[in-house]
Amino acid sequence: MFYHDKKLQYKVRVDKPNPQFARALQQAIGGIEGEIRVCLQYLFQSWNSRGPQRYRDMLLDTGTEEMAHIEMLVTAVSLNLEGASSGVIESIVGGDSLMEKIVGGGDPRHFLSGGLGALAADANGVPFNGSWVVSSGNIAADMYANVMAEATGRTLATRLYELTDDAGMKDMLAFLIARDTMHQQQWLAVLEELGNGDIRNVLPIPNSFPQSQEHQEFSYAFVNTNIDPDEPSAGLNRRWTQGPSFDGRSEFREMKAQPIGGEPKLAPPIPEGHAQVEQIEKANVKS
Amino acid sequence: MFYHDKKLQYKVRVDKPNPQFARALQQAIGGIEGEIRVCLQYLFQSWNSRGPQRYRDMLLDTGTEEMAHIEMLVTAVSLNLEGASSGVIESIVGGDSLMEKIVGGGDPRHFLSGGLGALAADANGVPFNGSWVVSSGNIAADMYANVMAEATGRTLATRLYELTDDAGMKDMLAFLIARDTMHQQQWLAVLEELGNGDIRNVLPIPNSFPQSQEHQEFSYAFVNTNIDPDEPSAGLNRRWTQGPSFDGRSEFREMKAQPIGGEPKLAPPIPEGHAQVEQIEKANVKS
Amino acid sequence: MFYHDKKLQYKVRVDKPNPQFARALQQAIGGIEGEIRVCLQYLFQSWNSRGPQRYRDMLLDTGTEEMAHIEMLVTAVSLNLEGASSGVIESIVGGDSLMEKIVGGGDPRHFLSGGLGALAADANGVPFNGSWVVSSGNIAADMYANVMAEATGRTLATRLYELTDDAGMKDMLAFLIARDTMHQQQWLAVLEELGNGDIRNVLPIPNSFPQSQEHQEFSYAFVNTNIDPDEPSAGLNRRWTQGPSFDGRSEFREMKAQPIGGEPKLAPPIPEGHAQVEQIEKANVKS
Amino acid sequence: MFYHDKKLQYKVRVDKPNPQFARALQQAIGGIEGEIRVCLQYLFQSWNSRGPQRYRDMLLDTGTEEMAHIEMLVTAVSLNLEGASSGVIESIVGGDSLMEKIVGGGDPRHFLSGGLGALAADANGVPFNGSWVVSSGNIAADMYANVMAEATGRTLATRLYELTDDAGMKDMLAFLIARDTMHQQQWLAVLEELGNGDIRNVLPIPNSFPQSQEHQEFSYAFVNTNIDPDEPSAGLNRRWTQGPSFDGRSEFREMKAQPIGGEPKLAPPIPEGHAQVEQIEKANVKS
Amino acid sequence: MFYHDKKLQYKVRVDKPNPQFARALQQAIGGIEGEIRVCLQYLFQSWNSRGPQRYRDMLLDTGTEEMAHIEMLVTAVSLNLEGASSGVIESIVGGDSLMEKIVGGGDPRHFLSGGLGALAADANGVPFNGSWVVSSGNIAADMYANVMAEATGRTLATRLYELTDDAGMKDMLAFLIARDTMHQQQWLAVLEELGNGDIRNVLPIPNSFPQSQEHQEFSYAFVNTNIDPDEPSAGLNRRWTQGPSFDGRSEFREMKAQPIGGEPKLAPPIPEGHAQVEQIEKANVKS
Amino acid sequence: MFYHDKKLQYKVRVDKPNPQFARALQQAIGGIEGEIRVCLQYLFQSWNSRGPQRYRDMLLDTGTEEMAHIEMLVTAVSLNLEGASSGVIESIVGGDSLMEKIVGGGDPRHFLSGGLGALAADANGVPFNGSWVVSSGNIAADMYANVMAEATGRTLATRLYELTDDAGMKDMLAFLIARDTMHQQQWLAVLEELGNGDIRNVLPIPNSFPQSQEHQEFSYAFVNTNIDPDEPSAGLNRRWTQGPSFDGRSEFREMKAQPIGGEPKLAPPIPEGHAQVEQIEKANVKS
Repeated sequence: MFYHDKKLQYKVRVDKPNPQFARALQQAIGGIEGEIRVCLQYLFQSWNSRGPQRYRDMLLDTGTEEMAHIEMLVTAVSLNLEGASSGVIESIVGGDSLMEKIVGGGDPRHFLSGGLGALAADANGVPFNGSWVVSSGNIAADMYANVMAEATGRTLATRLYELTDDAGMKDMLAFLIARDTMHQQQWLAVLEELGNGDIRNVLPIPNSFPQSQEHQEFSYAFVNTNIDPDEPSAGLNRRWTQGPSFDGRSEFREMKAQPIGGEPKLAPPIPEGHAQVEQIEKANVKS
Repeated sequence: MFYHDKKLQYKVRVDKPNPQFARALQQAIGGIEGEIRVCLQYLFQSWNSRGPQRYRDMLLDTGTEEMAHIEMLVTAVSLNLEGASSGVIESIVGGDSLMEKIVGGGDPRHFLSGGLGALAADANGVPFNGSWVVSSGNIAADMYANVMAEATGRTLATRLYELTDDAGMKDMLAFLIARDTMHQQQWLAVLEELGNGDIRNVLPIPNSFPQSQEHQEFSYAFVNTNIDPDEPSAGLNRRWTQGPSFDGRSEFREMKAQPIGGEPKLAPPIPEGHAQVEQIEKANVKS
Repeated sequence: MFYHDKKLQYKVRVDKPNPQFARALQQAIGGIEGEIRVCLQYLFQSWNSRGPQRYRDMLLDTGTEEMAHIEMLVTAVSLNLEGASSGVIESIVGGDSLMEKIVGGGDPRHFLSGGLGALAADANGVPFNGSWVVSSGNIAADMYANVMAEATGRTLATRLYELTDDAGMKDMLAFLIARDTMHQQQWLAVLEELGNGDIRNVLPIPNSFPQSQEHQEFSYAFVNTNIDPDEPSAGLNRRWTQGPSFDGRSEFREMKAQPIGGEPKLAPPIPEGHAQVEQIEKANVKS
Repeated sequence: MFYHDKKLQYKVRVDKPNPQFARALQQAIGGIEGEIRVCLQYLFQSWNSRGPQRYRDMLLDTGTEEMAHIEMLVTAVSLNLEGASSGVIESIVGGDSLMEKIVGGGDPRHFLSGGLGALAADANGVPFNGSWVVSSGNIAADMYANVMAEATGRTLATRLYELTDDAGMKDMLAFLIARDTMHQQQWLAVLEELGNGDIRNVLPIPNSFPQSQEHQEFSYAFVNTNIDPDEPSAGLNRRWTQGPSFDGRSEFREMKAQPIGGEPKLAPPIPEGHAQVEQIEKANVKS
Repeated sequence: MFYHDKKLQYKVRVDKPNPQFARALQQAIGGIEGEIRVCLQYLFQSWNSRGPQRYRDMLLDTGTEEMAHIEMLVTAVSLNLEGASSGVIESIVGGDSLMEKIVGGGDPRHFLSGGLGALAADANGVPFNGSWVVSSGNIAADMYANVMAEATGRTLATRLYELTDDAGMKDMLAFLIARDTMHQQQWLAVLEELGNGDIRNVLPIPNSFPQSQEHQEFSYAFVNTNIDPDEPSAGLNRRWTQGPSFDGRSEFREMKAQPIGGEPKLAPPIPEGHAQVEQIEKANVKS
Repeated sequence: MFYHDKKLQYKVRVDKPNPQFARALQQAIGGIEGEIRVCLQYLFQSWNSRGPQRYRDMLLDTGTEEMAHIEMLVTAVSLNLEGASSGVIESIVGGDSLMEKIVGGGDPRHFLSGGLGALAADANGVPFNGSWVVSSGNIAADMYANVMAEATGRTLATRLYELTDDAGMKDMLAFLIARDTMHQQQWLAVLEELGNGDIRNVLPIPNSFPQSQEHQEFSYAFVNTNIDPDEPSAGLNRRWTQGPSFDGRSEFREMKAQPIGGEPKLAPPIPEGHAQVEQIEKANVKS
């Protein structure tokens, strides 16, 4: 169950409101790299957790923290859409400039749909999409999904940091970037723990499927699909074509792309599907 | 530029067509863990690549290979929707059973929209969504996105393997599972190479943002948001709260959740946004 | 900022796991009538709030409560996908029945993508969509959006109640239905307060736009678009065509549909838009 | 069945075409607050209607009227994308300004995909989404969905009114705002009628579920989730924590958030789901 | 402007309600081949029309007719979800069968969200999407979009016809199939008229772009991307590689796929984008 | 199976990078008229093909070619987001202009999410959607879907051509426009072949449904829904109301819109759906 107070996890200050930056910040709220995604992802992984209790508990802690990050960023958007002094407010709403600042460059829905408030959408106004919430039931796959989310998320935050000269916004982002640093570490720490001290031991994911049942002649081979006779292979003298495999169970090697399966052969159309007459009648004609 | 022949990368055989399994296979075609996603993801990463040439080349090889995996799975869906013998076809289209087999349990659009063909959609008929294609411009973030895709993808393939008793389908899946094994390895090999032999050296991602600019007091601290006084912290004696940080630059520690930012304070509504009169007039009333 | 403990707001017990009911429950998690929507909607309204402080605070309380409802429902889905006794587990995963129970009737992604866990999606696997999160900047419009969410939400919960015979599930739903009862009341109480004791005084929404600027001859007239000469009007002797208007400012009346605007007249295509030659040349030809 | 003439319900005049305003108008066509939504919503409610005939008939009238509103707004977008004099046309298509006016600030798809025509999308080009069409089968829930649609719709229209200085556009919007005024009234009139003269009698929605089956101890209690000991409750001396409940059946009260349900306990992963080995083996380990 | 009466364009009778068929019918309402799409497509094309008046008028007629088709199909879904006699109603709602009939096979949202009513969604519950509404500003492109819509639409209708044994449903579908026959003709008649009696004269679309500005050496050549030396070309002795081109302006020929453009060369990453350090430093390293 | 080399099908040169044009180009990558759509559409049609082998083979050739078009356009976007000389790079990233160029006018996600790289989305950042991939199982319907895709696609390409003054971009587009010319021809050549030399013989699509089973009195009649007594019919003296039908099987004629079906009559709500009490009780009351 969840509780709250009325304060922010870290201070959110906007020295010079900027509707264009408000639009950019939306990517960190409702974008695929954003905080709604990580919040729901960690909470769903926790609530669905069937693994050791320790991971359920930790995920619940961090999912709850991410709620506070959404709160900070929504507040930052709202503050970027207003003005501390009436002069700034006027410059936003006066005559042509209302159109120019809000509609041009900014997100028009910040005004039209939000009345100067944030949306559950990305920097282009594309709504948050629940398909991004990954909770696979395999703890290692989930941890890699989390590392990915924090890696693209921290990259996004550093780009937002570059986009702004506002000292308050830079201060807030420096905090969020630090938290992303920790969260990258945290999910990798779980992988290390799962691998008994070596992250490579979790491979291949899932590790509960017997490798004897996969076709192992293809399990450690880089497939080269390049047919240019004048070009060296992308696998020539590369780590992914030689040396021990990353899980220590085999040797990497290179394999030229080969169509092992023959040509596919489908049955003719069934009458009830109402293909064209010619398709039904000539389905078996080779050409 | 791209070329093809008319053969499949690996053989696709369906011994006993099964429309319900055809529906399940759609997840591996157009789902978030599916092959259209990895195909476009690797190709976009290659085409957008500004990093060392070697990664652009390798991504192009593997993105092209994934095209052949979509081809195999679409063929498998089509074959699962038909019958090798006329008896099987009849059992699909005869009387009540047409409704029961195609509409109940299977995906009705396989018949209605596809005429017994595959769709660019997931196992629930939800269309493939381009937002899943991650190409961040940061090679390490991209590689983690790729590991994640192959980890959830291989997990999906093993579950499909469990769902079917069809020897042909098991054979095809055993091939695809093997390729996922390799691809997990391959992206991690890049991370190892980027880290000069130790995958942990790529952290934090992106590593081109000076850590001195993030608020480092929060960079290695697990935040405990649990307020239950009767419960031990999820960080008690855990790897993510003690010992060296995963990147070797600090020590992990635990931090009780604290609202460092004060209460947020937004300006009153602007008249042009047409809030209710009471909001505008009482915006500054504390309660 | 947000906090949690490890307990549920109300007990979640499943006596007889049922994958089909798990699918139906998804509508209350990730559907338009579901808990993710109301949770984010109340929190965004609170965080974006520029009105009196009292509404910001109240919305924060209830948005936080809704987090706990998502938690309960995700737990309910997970429990419906498993078996307390090994016998039940076996009936789910054994032979043909794995396919039949999980793929037919249930949501195949519960197994394929979730490993027997809930998704951020509705009963058809359609992902949660951020466009449903309404935070308009007008407190009265927001309150009606909230009443609507709780009205369709409570209707959904009563239908889920009818669908199940499981005593544990009925118990959980009886709790959630009661909370929806309260939340309907709560948002209407705000409307009553805004209307100084009479909910009708908030009209028209927004009430900060001067009615003198709207074309008031159309403000209280029911427009009858029915052209059947043999049918009485849908406004004959109805409350919406006679008596005082609901806001007490006018009288309702009926108006026959009339095309007051003339025929629209667009300019010919510009050459750069590359319409067909015939369009450009004959754009002004009447027929 | 439906019929038309070739005229507009109200005149649509654009004095000074403005591609940026054309973009903003799209929110009223294909946005969640827009006319396609209300048109389809009222028509689906009518066509699906199982209640008293009078509501089916009225919904059909107003749904048909909304078709004419889409027509007006599409015409307004098209007119804003052109120029009455060749001088204006030239300023749109000449050199750099074609790019600046259409791509910057405006919606580039108005030119690229529409050849200077409107789209079935919102102000950010996000397509209209059928999930917004609410037709619940419960007339009271539907009426609240309709009030909500007209409340956010009228708020949007007043903001569009503020964004433009074009006399023709202001005239058109003044008409549409007036119609929204009426439609808010109309749906509330149905609620009043359903409540036998008092709108509160329709509560709780649905009113056909016996309240004895809900857990009534939670039906009229505001849940306070705030844990800050230094802050007064958001329910202190508020209407939603004291006095008769809005439906007159009980008294409001306040309740401190309490986790009545214990800690959730899920079964270990099933082997077929291919969790990691460590999850399966240590699933029951407490930490 | 639009008008209605209360009758259906053609009779809708369901002899034996069938929730599974109700689900299948949804494809014809809210699917990409469905009636909401053609209705809005024809109306948007009419409202946006800048071509000869005759096409604007005709599109308005047929767009209005399609409204009546949505009405018929929504009615058909509602009727398939109910029972004329109480016995049928009981079989739907009784005990286990409520779950089995509504949730398994049918669309659970027909009950959960619609209370036995139709949705603005396809046969899998995926919502109608406004991106399907094509109105390009080029009358020939629009006409082909319309032929395509009616061709896939009529194919869908014939498959629905095959799926049902219900005489009432077959009767309704036989009407809708006939209308699709006419509409295919109608759009092709426009193309014939545009081509002065020969449909081929509209090519290439758009015909207002001077062909001298395209690279005409590639305008009539089939590109063969097959690299299998053992296979004959797909262009060998085919109509699309020999004889006059379809527009009579050239001769078809075959061309072997050739990479005329060299290898792409992108600039190194900019520092503000925060790629990994290794990317920035080694961006120009060939391998 | 698929292969590649490292070269482009045609050269891609950008003389003066332009982030706004990069945004516009996205429509040709991930928009409904774009290359991802045609690539997947032709490949799915090939892979699902049950018709004569010749069409399967040809579709595979052209689908593979389209892969190379996506590659060209992604490269063009990346090049438009950078600068060949450091001066240009600086103008993009310097101070205010970074915000103005990237966020205003351009797509902010090109920087935020892509690090100056292309996305799988349209010109408004709306993600590619798999629902656009049409593979119907009827070869004639598919060919019309392909003509439509190439007609709207060529129209888009000519508009992009008008939007740019960059000689390199114009050169690339002149190539792509030429390929669209050929592809329009190619699909029509198949239709001609299917019609034994006359494209009209493929009608009505599908031609495998016996026309005797449709209600043929409605098959060749234009339905006039206009009720304005002062306006001539849109069918007066038109090709679609007189002369032989386009398939040569009948005569066109005009028909005044008539509601042949009576008024629909739905059953009262079932108790389990929890409509309002008033609906259930008064369902049969006429008004």
